[in-house]
Amino acid sequence: MAKRKIAVIGVGKIAQDQHLPVIDASEDFELAATVSTRGVGHGDKPVFRTAAELYAAMPDVGLVSICTPPGVRHSLVREALDAGKDVMMEKPPTTTISELDDIIAHAARLDRVLFQTWHSQYNAAVDRAKAILAQQGVKSVRIDWRESVRKWHPGQDWVWEPGGFGVCDPGINAYSIFTKIMPFPVFVESANLTFPANRQTPVDVEVKFKSGQPHRPEMSSGFNWLEESGEIWTIHVVTGTGDDLKLERGGRTLRINGDVVLEHGDSEYAGIYDRFADLLDAHQSDVDAAPLRLMSDVFLMGARENGPDFEW
Amino acid sequence: MAKRKIAVIGVGKIAQDQHLPVIDASEDFELAATVSTRGVGHGDKPVFRTAAELYAAMPDVGLVSICTPPGVRHSLVREALDAGKDVMMEKPPTTTISELDDIIAHAARLDRVLFQTWHSQYNAAVDRAKAILAQQGVKSVRIDWRESVRKWHPGQDWVWEPGGFGVCDPGINAYSIFTKIMPFPVFVESANLTFPANRQTPVDVEVKFKSGQPHRPEMSSGFNWLEESGEIWTIHVVTGTGDDLKLERGGRTLRINGDVVLEHGDSEYAGIYDRFADLLDAHQSDVDAAPLRLMSDVFLMGARENGPDFEW
Repeated sequence: MAKRKIAVIGVGKIAQDQHLPVIDASEDFELAATVSTRGVGHGDKPVFRTAAELYAAMPDVGLVSICTPPGVRHSLVREALDAGKDVMMEKPPTTTISELDDIIAHAARLDRVLFQTWHSQYNAAVDRAKAILAQQGVKSVRIDWRESVRKWHPGQDWVWEPGGFGVCDPGINAYSIFTKIMPFPVFVESANLTFPANRQTPVDVEVKFKSGQPHRPEMSSGFNWLEESGEIWTIHVVTGTGDDLKLERGGRTLRINGDVVLEHGDSEYAGIYDRFADLLDAHQSDVDAAPLRLMSDVFLMGARENGPDFEW
Repeated sequence: MAKRKIAVIGVGKIAQDQHLPVIDASEDFELAATVSTRGVGHGDKPVFRTAAELYAAMPDVGLVSICTPPGVRHSLVREALDAGKDVMMEKPPTTTISELDDIIAHAARLDRVLFQTWHSQYNAAVDRAKAILAQQGVKSVRIDWRESVRKWHPGQDWVWEPGGFGVCDPGINAYSIFTKIMPFPVFVESANLTFPANRQTPVDVEVKFKSGQPHRPEMSSGFNWLEESGEIWTIHVVTGTGDDLKLERGGRTLRINGDVVLEHGDSEYAGIYDRFADLLDAHQSDVDAAPLRLMSDVFLMGARENGPDFEW
């Protein structure tokens, strides 16, 4: 079967590190063009400054992968759907829940495929954890997601601007795994957000969750952006039968009662594109609003306090 | 046709002022019982302390109207749906978007009717405004929603607690009209929330909206909770053809170019129960997540600043 022609819109770090190499190596997809306001191309493929130019010049390209920052993603997805394209989009999908629900509804109305992926959701360790919890249930959950903003976003003041999410930007990766593996729905019970007094997004966030479950599992998360000892990206679950389940390294390593039982390799984006090919074959969308919704609830329900100023 | 038996859960001010008198006067509904943790009844009808007791004692009552504060509503709706009841619920439906989407999905799974109403959505003045804007389009929108927290919530410290919404509690009434009458979807572009330095919810909120519309209509809202001159609950729209449309008094009065063209009477809750009867006949749910979603985006996107302390 001929490969599907796809264009990549937004040629920043994530496109260059992941999307373009995976498409180059893919048996399902073939890069047709890139769209870059800065004119960044790939190999000998045509480069367009706007998506509208691409759609006008190459109407036979039926697929786009949108890798821009989230602030402009909603309008680009709308434009692509209106142009009759099927769409893959990077995470987080949009900056607000209203925008996300709007494009989900718009894709359904136009009968287009919309696919949006989250961190580590195409990962064997996460899938295994989900299967175990479906069988054994959950007694307690503790999420620790700590990293250094100075290491991961050096000098990027926009992460501290309103809508920039602050430490909830990495934190939503934790929630995308958490909402996937849990065998029942979870809700925010209470939250404490600490803001640097001179910044607009939180640097430290503690959340307690509730569920409608009669056994009242204890569930909480802690995010911190001033961890200089290295990344701690861990979800620790005590199962209903008392096993100690840990997803470490951002969901890549699964430990049970201390033993590593599964290490996921580096093939996350290959898995994502395989999934997109399957969705296109089935003409089916897959967008999960749960992680952004839960994070949005953290901001809605959160108590706020000011901490020390943050300077780079 | 025999009247439908309905139980009212939560017998506070809104149930006593609106639901119970409307049910008493209804041709469609007949009060079967009340559920009240404080044992508050109505007429000679049985009173239960919990919903579970009601469901066990009177299994033939197929409908409930949930009038409790929002914090407990999610679990009460879940319980009612699981017991096979069709459900009407007061506004705001839940404290978080995750809970609201959960009960919408749960009602669909169980094939039950779930109906949730917002402020002034069953109101001829609002319906007329919507029809006009559908025809004429929108050039600009300004929402002013100002009232005195001291008058409307005297001494109620919970309105200042996390999750209490602050001035966004009355403000969501404005958004429920706004999202209903607009002929295109609207999204939060930016927001400024001012908190009393000694409180956890905002006292003043300014929001700018955006839309995907090419003519870029200017749209904004301002909420304030320290307005002592009387209530200002106004939505002012300049239509695409230049007419000046004003919804005043919280959506009850419609003015066009200065002239009152429609005054809605006091029959809002009678209209709500008529709508519930229609939905039950059609076995159809009606829950609109848009107002809570938009307000949730305000908290997610908002810049925060501290203002003067608030004391009663």
